[in-house]
Amino acid sequence: MTALGHHLLVEFEGCDPVALADLEQVTSAMLRAAVASGATVVTHSFHHFSPQGVSGAVIIAESHLAIHTWPEHGFAAVDFFSCGGVDMDRGVALLKIAFGATKETRLELERGPLRTVRP
Amino acid sequence: MTALGHHLLVEFEGCDPVALADLEQVTSAMLRAAVASGATVVTHSFHHFSPQGVSGAVIIAESHLAIHTWPEHGFAAVDFFSCGGVDMDRGVALLKIAFGATKETRLELERGPLRTVRP
Repeated sequence: MTALGHHLLVEFEGCDPVALADLEQVTSAMLRAAVASGATVVTHSFHHFSPQGVSGAVIIAESHLAIHTWPEHGFAAVDFFSCGGVDMDRGVALLKIAFGATKETRLELERGPLRTVRP
Repeated sequence: MTALGHHLLVEFEGCDPVALADLEQVTSAMLRAAVASGATVVTHSFHHFSPQGVSGAVIIAESHLAIHTWPEHGFAAVDFFSCGGVDMDRGVALLKIAFGATKETRLELERGPLRTVRP
């Protein structure tokens, strides 16, 4: 079976804590990342946690994007899951700037069947 | 830095195509999986794709669950992302039964920093 989906896990470090704690900024950045990647946004759902942090997902016609932020660590974990022609690099680049990240770490997986593409 | 999140990727094969194609069944199974895991559901968003397949996410107080189904392959890719005391095994067991899966494959990761726990 050829892979059904492509899953990119990205972690951003050294981010601006204020940006990561702001529900509106995180939501806007994720939606813009989806659009920049060429994805078609279907719906989205974001939530601000007390005392801080934002979690959310964007359902795209090609699968989903998800994020969790830890402002207190300047850290954000992002997932791009796609089954179609989505240029995730453009989305990642946009998020890196939006959050002012100084470092990013990636893990690329194929889904269906699960396989590490690039550790 | 100690891991901030725990990320379990699960793939189900040999599933009932009818269950995987049904928006209501998939949504219900994912919400029940979240509750069975001890998670607190904050909000959720699911979408049925044409001609078939369901994508969706459940935002929980402890992070999120996401799913994509390919009824034509009897296949579903599920993600459990948690930052708290969530018993993912209970959620996975529930989904396996709900979808009638004959096989499951798992990959366990730590997030923040990204690290494979069990391949």
